[in-house]
Amino acid sequence: MTDFKLPPSLSVYGNEETAKDILSRAWGKRGVFTCTVANTLTSTIPGVSEAGDTPELTMFTPPADAELLISGKTTCMKGIPINPGGIPTPATLTKAALELSGMPYYIVNGGSKINPHVPYFDMGGECGDYITTGKAVANVRQIYERGFMLGQMLARAYDFVVISESCAGGTTTALAVLTAMGVLKENLVSSSSPNNPKELKSKLVAEGLAAAGVKPGDLADDPLKAIECVGDPMMPANIGIIAGAATSVPVVIGGGTQMGAVIAGVVKMHPEVIGNIFQGTTRWLMNDPNSSMKKIMDCIGADVPIVYVNVDYSESPYEGLQAYEWGFIKEGVGCGGSSVGAIMMTSGEVTCEALVDKVHEIYRGIMGFE
Amino acid sequence: MTDFKLPPSLSVYGNEETAKDILSRAWGKRGVFTCTVANTLTSTIPGVSEAGDTPELTMFTPPADAELLISGKTTCMKGIPINPGGIPTPATLTKAALELSGMPYYIVNGGSKINPHVPYFDMGGECGDYITTGKAVANVRQIYERGFMLGQMLARAYDFVVISESCAGGTTTALAVLTAMGVLKENLVSSSSPNNPKELKSKLVAEGLAAAGVKPGDLADDPLKAIECVGDPMMPANIGIIAGAATSVPVVIGGGTQMGAVIAGVVKMHPEVIGNIFQGTTRWLMNDPNSSMKKIMDCIGADVPIVYVNVDYSESPYEGLQAYEWGFIKEGVGCGGSSVGAIMMTSGEVTCEALVDKVHEIYRGIMGFE
Repeated sequence: MTDFKLPPSLSVYGNEETAKDILSRAWGKRGVFTCTVANTLTSTIPGVSEAGDTPELTMFTPPADAELLISGKTTCMKGIPINPGGIPTPATLTKAALELSGMPYYIVNGGSKINPHVPYFDMGGECGDYITTGKAVANVRQIYERGFMLGQMLARAYDFVVISESCAGGTTTALAVLTAMGVLKENLVSSSSPNNPKELKSKLVAEGLAAAGVKPGDLADDPLKAIECVGDPMMPANIGIIAGAATSVPVVIGGGTQMGAVIAGVVKMHPEVIGNIFQGTTRWLMNDPNSSMKKIMDCIGADVPIVYVNVDYSESPYEGLQAYEWGFIKEGVGCGGSSVGAIMMTSGEVTCEALVDKVHEIYRGIMGFE
Repeated sequence: MTDFKLPPSLSVYGNEETAKDILSRAWGKRGVFTCTVANTLTSTIPGVSEAGDTPELTMFTPPADAELLISGKTTCMKGIPINPGGIPTPATLTKAALELSGMPYYIVNGGSKINPHVPYFDMGGECGDYITTGKAVANVRQIYERGFMLGQMLARAYDFVVISESCAGGTTTALAVLTAMGVLKENLVSSSSPNNPKELKSKLVAEGLAAAGVKPGDLADDPLKAIECVGDPMMPANIGIIAGAATSVPVVIGGGTQMGAVIAGVVKMHPEVIGNIFQGTTRWLMNDPNSSMKKIMDCIGADVPIVYVNVDYSESPYEGLQAYEWGFIKEGVGCGGSSVGAIMMTSGEVTCEALVDKVHEIYRGIMGFE
């Protein structure tokens, strides 16, 4: 057992020894952060996604998140991505982590409906179709292959890699892929709303699998096929990046239950990455009573620990941020992974308190508060 | 005067003090290499470009160069890009420089006809039109703005930046932009053939300017407008990257006379970069009797020195490489800039001899020789 001591800002679920081994190897080293943006028309089905003020606006959330991260303002839409009720995108925390750590960051375009007006790595993908078509993602292998090359490129230049996603509707597609692969037999995925529309999601997944002629578990050995049928274009890009990078450097898989499909896919296709990857997320996601990342990871059944950041907004003066404590948002845009990465890169010098202070500063700037 | 000593692998034209100041600040530091690929239909006009075995194949040369750099093989075409006669792409030297130095590298897509099957930074551009239309490049400002953001991103992550290009037909578009800006009054640009088709290039430039309703010098103060009329999509991307990066880190502008338009554009739009940029190229380009990079730089009239690498293929056992000594190719795909960058990053440990040995190894691998 390594004698690495976890800072109070971080907690671990799963194999603590593996987590500490990876953390100790990347501690104080140079990391890089990527956020893969993508769309699936599935998010425009009313009720599926709250990652946007209206179902139509969920199409703009990923590119707007990308613009916010890179240029500090949004061009493709007015204002910043919010959930109904005005709760701000978790990109606010991501920006705080990146600014405090000085970690370089890049946008990956897995396949967006609207291309963000910032530089991004193009993966040759396009916006995903409704999963109910059973033909949800085009060019899956090409996206995966480009992702693999990108992972190799990043591993050549940095000591560890943090990946993440912004893909509205992504928990529904994750549930579909995990079901097609036989990893999940029940609906354990999360929602950016405390009122997780579980029945609707399960119904859409069943329709998608039926349209594809796939029964649960049929595609246990073919994650790319499962993604082609009922996934989204974020998935093959991120599976590729992990696979290309994690044979040489540690990879932090930033995100919530959406990343379940990515993790299940990569450990099936590339078991050699096990021991060099962990999920990086938030205590909000881990404490969600309406989903269970822990159970999803147990169902995947590989040695992939979860390292989560103990950021707490309960003392925030802003209701929009307090809402995170009430079960809204919880994850997204790699807010957990980038926070974990910032703590790693600075050998623990970035603390939860420093992150919250920085989020307040960014939030005030964006909202035009004094 | 800095007491920095130039290694025998490098020579300088222009202000040696500025060059040595920049070199000394980047010596032994972490650099990054980018190659901006783009197309202009101008290269398919018979006789304009020899960057491809036939005029049509010039469309494939930039994406194939990108694929060769990133994945080591070409997917969009069979074989590797060659000039008529079988002379291999200068990407062979670029690869040697990148491999010997371990410098990270990325492809930037300024606007290609065929998208390379590798990860690249998309700039939102598209293949340029014939310059004879007078409306050669769409979305110029958008490409420039994304380039600027990319330059900022790279400067955040690296200590110096090397930029470059692969854009068949690029000397013709450079001549056109430099004429529109009034920088050049005669045809001083190079060619990848020793038989530089100067009359054809000058005729096309005159046609393009007439179609745009622009007289030589009319656009002295508006480089982006000159590019829109008679340039190519590589230019705004690279002007943006230089402008975004060079206020914080040194930038090596890799390439030959094609880069004249980029340099003239950036020093007009962003004079604050002067003192932190130089051109990085090859002795082949500097010794070309049919063009004059020196005169072009003198006409630009800013303090932008030229640092060139003294790589020599005259002892090479391969005719395809010896041809570089006879006036073929001379530059491209940042072969000069990446070599200069490799020497900088390794504090001069990479030598011309090591580069040539590595080129031979790469050339044998590509050609399938023993």
